[in-house]
Amino acid sequence: MTASLASIDPFLEDALALLGPRGLTCDPELVSPWLTDWRGRFTGKARALASPANVEELSQLVRLCGQHGVPIVPQGGNSGMSGGATPDQTGEALLLSLRRMNHIREIDAEAGRVTCEAGVVLQTLHEAAEAQDLRFPLTLGGKGSATVGGLISTNAGGSQVLRHGSMRALVLGLEAVLADGQVFSALTPLKKDNRGFDLKQLLIGSEGTLGIVTAATLRLLPAVAERVVIWAGVSSLPAARTLLLHCEAMEGETLEGFEVMPQASIDAVKDHMPAARAPLEGRHAWHVLIEVVADRAGAATLRERCEAMMADAFEKDLLEDAAMSASEAQADAFWLIRETVPAAERARGPAVQHDISVPVEKMPAFVEITAPMLEAEFPGTEAIAFGHLGDGNVHYHVIAPQVTDGKAWNANEGKAISRRVHDLVTQWGGSISAEHGIGQLKRDELVRLGDPAALYMLRAVKQALDPQGLLNPGKLI
Amino acid sequence: MTASLASIDPFLEDALALLGPRGLTCDPELVSPWLTDWRGRFTGKARALASPANVEELSQLVRLCGQHGVPIVPQGGNSGMSGGATPDQTGEALLLSLRRMNHIREIDAEAGRVTCEAGVVLQTLHEAAEAQDLRFPLTLGGKGSATVGGLISTNAGGSQVLRHGSMRALVLGLEAVLADGQVFSALTPLKKDNRGFDLKQLLIGSEGTLGIVTAATLRLLPAVAERVVIWAGVSSLPAARTLLLHCEAMEGETLEGFEVMPQASIDAVKDHMPAARAPLEGRHAWHVLIEVVADRAGAATLRERCEAMMADAFEKDLLEDAAMSASEAQADAFWLIRETVPAAERARGPAVQHDISVPVEKMPAFVEITAPMLEAEFPGTEAIAFGHLGDGNVHYHVIAPQVTDGKAWNANEGKAISRRVHDLVTQWGGSISAEHGIGQLKRDELVRLGDPAALYMLRAVKQALDPQGLLNPGKLI
Repeated sequence: MTASLASIDPFLEDALALLGPRGLTCDPELVSPWLTDWRGRFTGKARALASPANVEELSQLVRLCGQHGVPIVPQGGNSGMSGGATPDQTGEALLLSLRRMNHIREIDAEAGRVTCEAGVVLQTLHEAAEAQDLRFPLTLGGKGSATVGGLISTNAGGSQVLRHGSMRALVLGLEAVLADGQVFSALTPLKKDNRGFDLKQLLIGSEGTLGIVTAATLRLLPAVAERVVIWAGVSSLPAARTLLLHCEAMEGETLEGFEVMPQASIDAVKDHMPAARAPLEGRHAWHVLIEVVADRAGAATLRERCEAMMADAFEKDLLEDAAMSASEAQADAFWLIRETVPAAERARGPAVQHDISVPVEKMPAFVEITAPMLEAEFPGTEAIAFGHLGDGNVHYHVIAPQVTDGKAWNANEGKAISRRVHDLVTQWGGSISAEHGIGQLKRDELVRLGDPAALYMLRAVKQALDPQGLLNPGKLI
Repeated sequence: MTASLASIDPFLEDALALLGPRGLTCDPELVSPWLTDWRGRFTGKARALASPANVEELSQLVRLCGQHGVPIVPQGGNSGMSGGATPDQTGEALLLSLRRMNHIREIDAEAGRVTCEAGVVLQTLHEAAEAQDLRFPLTLGGKGSATVGGLISTNAGGSQVLRHGSMRALVLGLEAVLADGQVFSALTPLKKDNRGFDLKQLLIGSEGTLGIVTAATLRLLPAVAERVVIWAGVSSLPAARTLLLHCEAMEGETLEGFEVMPQASIDAVKDHMPAARAPLEGRHAWHVLIEVVADRAGAATLRERCEAMMADAFEKDLLEDAAMSASEAQADAFWLIRETVPAAERARGPAVQHDISVPVEKMPAFVEITAPMLEAEFPGTEAIAFGHLGDGNVHYHVIAPQVTDGKAWNANEGKAISRRVHDLVTQWGGSISAEHGIGQLKRDELVRLGDPAALYMLRAVKQALDPQGLLNPGKLI
């Protein structure tokens, strides 16, 4: 940023004095890559891009924003799915990158804990844990860019939630800068602490609207010593759920993934990635990926136990066919098919996508009942679901009729379909955002469908902790 | 209540019309037992005792209180440890009993869940779960009176937190009446739900200051099929912690209790309950109770695995002596000694008691360093600690010098000692209330020692959700 630019904006002048040229820029080449969200749905403008070096700088910057009335849009890896880190069109907001605050402050291997700053990338965290023969048990597609701060602010999920939970379950301590610049510091992990309600929980999943997460103490687990991935074919989604119950009963402590995909998605993967080899030769209404892992203590018997579990499942007629990974490479190959489903589905043409949950036991019925209903109500569409059956969370796509102008369809019929899907989910007691958050993408739908008492609480707490409304305005609430 | 009493208090007149005579009383015989807290430290006055029959009645009652400006003190089993359910001396408050709302609405055995009202007593919940071959894995001394609503409002702990967590970890869904009478209803359990920050978490541990919990959906686990309780003698508290790490490494998934007691507490139990037989013949600086449990799947091998775990511990010189329960009766007898420690310690004479936590790995050093420090600073006192080492949470008693007027000592030196203990805990990054909550007992200490940003957040949220300040005034904040 040139000095002249700063001098015409008193806020930027003060911010530049505080952060220095490394910490503040208006250079469009540096700023613009961060003004569009990961999925390319939202593009905004920003007054500048701030990258404070530490929590003290950030605290002072937030005070400065308060004095000048400047809105702040916090951003980690900019890989969110709901536009929660993209500023609006006014250009009023300061885009705040946490990426420079990327130190791993401490790993306590014996206690199984890491304290790291908000800007640490998930992949880096994985590697740091592995170097200590430990692991951080949350992972997702964007792990090369997603940061700890963003993962906490959105309470991220991913493919390993079944056993170890979403981000919320892995946060032991937290540090954040509040709207008035105060630093809330609760990094020390206490297993028991009843000094009032748990303030950490307010910041987890609040999408930067109540405070800016600057660091966290996270749970680490013993490294995976052995892993078996099983691919099974079943005749229906209820059958998949029965298989899930069977696996939970036999290997509840080692079962870490239970993903479902319809045959149509497997076909789409084959079209999209011709080199992919389906684990099973035959066709099955639903395909299931089951991941079972053990640390060193349980590794020796894992494979044998998996074989027993699957033999028992065969005997009880819980599946049509199954294959078990014989190597790490094969385990990865099985996962690659699952991970390719979203891209393969997108390649099939225009679609509206939904990230929804209902109570776990209701998901098979939800899909079986609502998919034909939607296809009848919106002729020519195809409704498909895939994902985390074990969490009651599927990604629910409704594909446009063929030969459709995608953009126009999305804006009209697509919007109507999404409203219908969200209505149905709400009727079934579910959530219109299982793991992707609300951001700006689903804000209006949350207002339309949210429980009035819940909306009242969300707004009252927001007003209480950010009375000027400067923290990530226009997101969530 | 006579009609004449109601007619001189317009609020009572309206409340009586709403609740009927079963739901409202001023009869001192019916009210007074609930005006003194469990430990007999606080006695208050109340305008009346209200016992609504259901959430709709409660919602209307709360609206009525708002209109008349009447404070509300919610109460479950009145077995809290910090006076959180006892009204103040003014007699302005309505004492609100949730005990009539005691229906178990639904048990879903397959999904491992129960939905029950706030007034369900913990013991009743245990029995209802057992009838379905399940269990609710939280228990504590007051289980015959403590209610689900009180347990949630105080985020209760107990002796089985090590593996399954405090109440917070067991709440899957919640229903509550807010300060303006709105009903917040989030009973449907969703494994994943990212519609903003998790509002349930605000109510858990808020001691009735933000809303009145009326019902909850709770997690149930498979019933215990086999249980082994081990009693070990070790030479020091760090040695106890090393033994804990050993047990966690070998039986992390089955280890449910790890309690420590000094030899002095065992001697006190023998004095207090002469029939008690110490599990070990010799004397040891510290005694450890280890509980390991398995459901049906793991039951067959549990005892054998425990034997291996203990043989390995002997070989590695991690303990001085150990005994393993051979029957359920013996397991109960081991626990009885542990459970008698608080009463036996109280029988030794006047003492100040503290419910504190520090990070788990620091607790041995905390006790070893601070106990002699306190005994030196306050000559004639004896500082002892016992309890949940696995949670970094001990009950820390400082016993008065012999031949002391307990009441005067408690009010003077005792108070100074408590301040000192809380100062030390705060210096070590710990909590002045690990599991008993703040209530009215520790409110001033929380204000004195709390992180300013945390106090600011507690107060801002309280003000936002209860602007009239009618929900349990004078408690927590």
